[in-house]
Amino acid sequence: MTERSYFDWNATAPVRPEAHEAVAAAHALTGNPSSVHAEGRAARRLVEHAREDVAKLVGARPGDVIFTASGTEANALALTPSIETADEKRPRGKLLISAIEHPSVRSGGRFPREAIADIPVDTDGRIELAALSAALPRTQRPLVSIMLANNETGVIQPVAEAAAMVHAAGGLLHVDAVQAAGRFAIEIGALGADLLTLSAHKIGGVKGAGALIRAREDIHFPEPLIRGGGQERGLRAGTENVAGIAAFGAAAKAALRAPFEEAAHMLALRDVLEEGIRKIAPQAVIFGAAAERLPNTILFAVPGMKAETAIIAFDLEGIAVSSGAACSSGKVQPSHVLAGMGVSPGLTRGAIRLSLGFSTTKADVERFQNAWRKLAGGLCKGSDERSGIAA
Amino acid sequence: MTERSYFDWNATAPVRPEAHEAVAAAHALTGNPSSVHAEGRAARRLVEHAREDVAKLVGARPGDVIFTASGTEANALALTPSIETADEKRPRGKLLISAIEHPSVRSGGRFPREAIADIPVDTDGRIELAALSAALPRTQRPLVSIMLANNETGVIQPVAEAAAMVHAAGGLLHVDAVQAAGRFAIEIGALGADLLTLSAHKIGGVKGAGALIRAREDIHFPEPLIRGGGQERGLRAGTENVAGIAAFGAAAKAALRAPFEEAAHMLALRDVLEEGIRKIAPQAVIFGAAAERLPNTILFAVPGMKAETAIIAFDLEGIAVSSGAACSSGKVQPSHVLAGMGVSPGLTRGAIRLSLGFSTTKADVERFQNAWRKLAGGLCKGSDERSGIAA
Repeated sequence: MTERSYFDWNATAPVRPEAHEAVAAAHALTGNPSSVHAEGRAARRLVEHAREDVAKLVGARPGDVIFTASGTEANALALTPSIETADEKRPRGKLLISAIEHPSVRSGGRFPREAIADIPVDTDGRIELAALSAALPRTQRPLVSIMLANNETGVIQPVAEAAAMVHAAGGLLHVDAVQAAGRFAIEIGALGADLLTLSAHKIGGVKGAGALIRAREDIHFPEPLIRGGGQERGLRAGTENVAGIAAFGAAAKAALRAPFEEAAHMLALRDVLEEGIRKIAPQAVIFGAAAERLPNTILFAVPGMKAETAIIAFDLEGIAVSSGAACSSGKVQPSHVLAGMGVSPGLTRGAIRLSLGFSTTKADVERFQNAWRKLAGGLCKGSDERSGIAA
Repeated sequence: MTERSYFDWNATAPVRPEAHEAVAAAHALTGNPSSVHAEGRAARRLVEHAREDVAKLVGARPGDVIFTASGTEANALALTPSIETADEKRPRGKLLISAIEHPSVRSGGRFPREAIADIPVDTDGRIELAALSAALPRTQRPLVSIMLANNETGVIQPVAEAAAMVHAAGGLLHVDAVQAAGRFAIEIGALGADLLTLSAHKIGGVKGAGALIRAREDIHFPEPLIRGGGQERGLRAGTENVAGIAAFGAAAKAALRAPFEEAAHMLALRDVLEEGIRKIAPQAVIFGAAAERLPNTILFAVPGMKAETAIIAFDLEGIAVSSGAACSSGKVQPSHVLAGMGVSPGLTRGAIRLSLGFSTTKADVERFQNAWRKLAGGLCKGSDERSGIAA
């Protein structure tokens, strides 16, 4: 592969060197963390050290970190009617989710379809707190799931405000923080989240590890999703992915060490990218631009542009961009996020996401700018409107 | 750590060099397999090549391999009443499992407790086919789960005979082949299994990858355990553990390349170990010795020996052995496998498992022999009977 520029960090991030080293070190240790001999205890230590580092990333206690194989699995574990707290053992009758959640949340976990209701978002992509307040059914012990930052737009959600409402209604709040982690400082207590989901590979760990983190140890899952050997305090069975968990810990530690530097770096490059996009195509729409956003994410569209064509054209120029969420079919599908924001289907079809990270360079940004200058005219010519592409 | 000898391959195997290289190669590729750009397609290729290699290991079609995060998760996915075939869409009312299954099978997956029944085993640790035949409730479309080789004793189960009975009764057979894979040749068709579970880390891949393999593509899971982004043809959501899956493929390829050499190597060393155990302690009982067993597993006890004490004593001599299954609590628990075989609680408490693998050496065997010669007298002195330890 010739030199390329990767602008799809929200789909998956490059493996941090610290994480790769942690994997290699874990491979050198043979041992099942459940075994009592020296090899087993060494594997156990790696898992427990990682648990401490992951807990620190969000200000939680290590004992409240439940390791899973992915953010998706953590969401699936969280979203169950049978979740209990010290003072509420009855099943939860209602799941409220925002209209812009990840498909793993939108699937509703173990809630029946008829028990799930949507909270709409405004045109900036922020959930409507008034709608949440109106929807909170005080009698049904609701579980509410709101992501901290949207994967497509990067828009940061008013989670702390939502938490206050949810708690006043006797509900529990689950927060999918997969895209927010490592991009700004997160404190599970300050957010008011009762449960929080993380994914290792989005912060520079490796694919195959995630976590569901509890705000308090009285939050309990009497019906775990995967049962068997009793790992993760009985909440998630299966031999621990020791290397993946160790890498998760290493990535969390790295992300925690340099959050401000990394965020400032990303933000500076993002501003240059946005300026360049608009300079060539003044009619470009940057979604969620009026809201608080992640420092690394740009979702934009130009009337007439088609995302599928654009992604391929950029790819041929050595630049990896996406159409929003990575889609398992490999096909570009209409974005439920933009639909939820009221964006027209025509503009939605042309939405392109650039997401960057700590190792994105000025040279990457320049490569994008050059490609955009070259491609924009052709990509946007399908518009019925005057294309307005700058020369 | 000073030089040690690892005899706990059934808990987890050392990572094969091929698997470690596959992980490093995967880490060098940034990309989500669901992304359409070059990075995404490269990650997709790794996953699909691995799918071919894993399928080959058991004579299945690549499209019938569903990657999971563990054997435990594969078992959890398999054991559901809602499993469908082309000609049977009604829920399955009964789950029959052997008395010696892994805890992930014994948990019953998504079957209610009252729908689960046990099939007993004989004193050699083999399931009683007559009991299976009597239990098969012809009217309830049973799902039956029988492991191919037991993790504690290594005893190989009469799966093909069971399959014929299960199919004659209109049932489906799930086979947990986690401990058998890589230790003898497996053909899903010849076994008659409808579903088969594998775990990567037991064959020299890495922890964090497993697979549920279908014998035919008409076997369907309308209610996947983990839903979201539609990965694994909608049967298991979550970003694929690309490196773990690539390592699984590499390990499967290596295991397939040298099955006879590796099995012969293990068997030769196992025979030496058993002879040594009996030479020092003639009254030692080797469980399942009268049955066909894996070439790598010895589960033995000596009257008076306590497993917890013995494991620690061996560990101090640089030798990793186990008490049977790796237990998440780190405590030695009574074995349900030996209980199922009718072994007395006293003898069960002293059961020690030695499990070896392709890289076990004669020096490892000698280190065990020397330690056993040194320790046996002390370890077995608790017996009420004459200890009978040879000098």
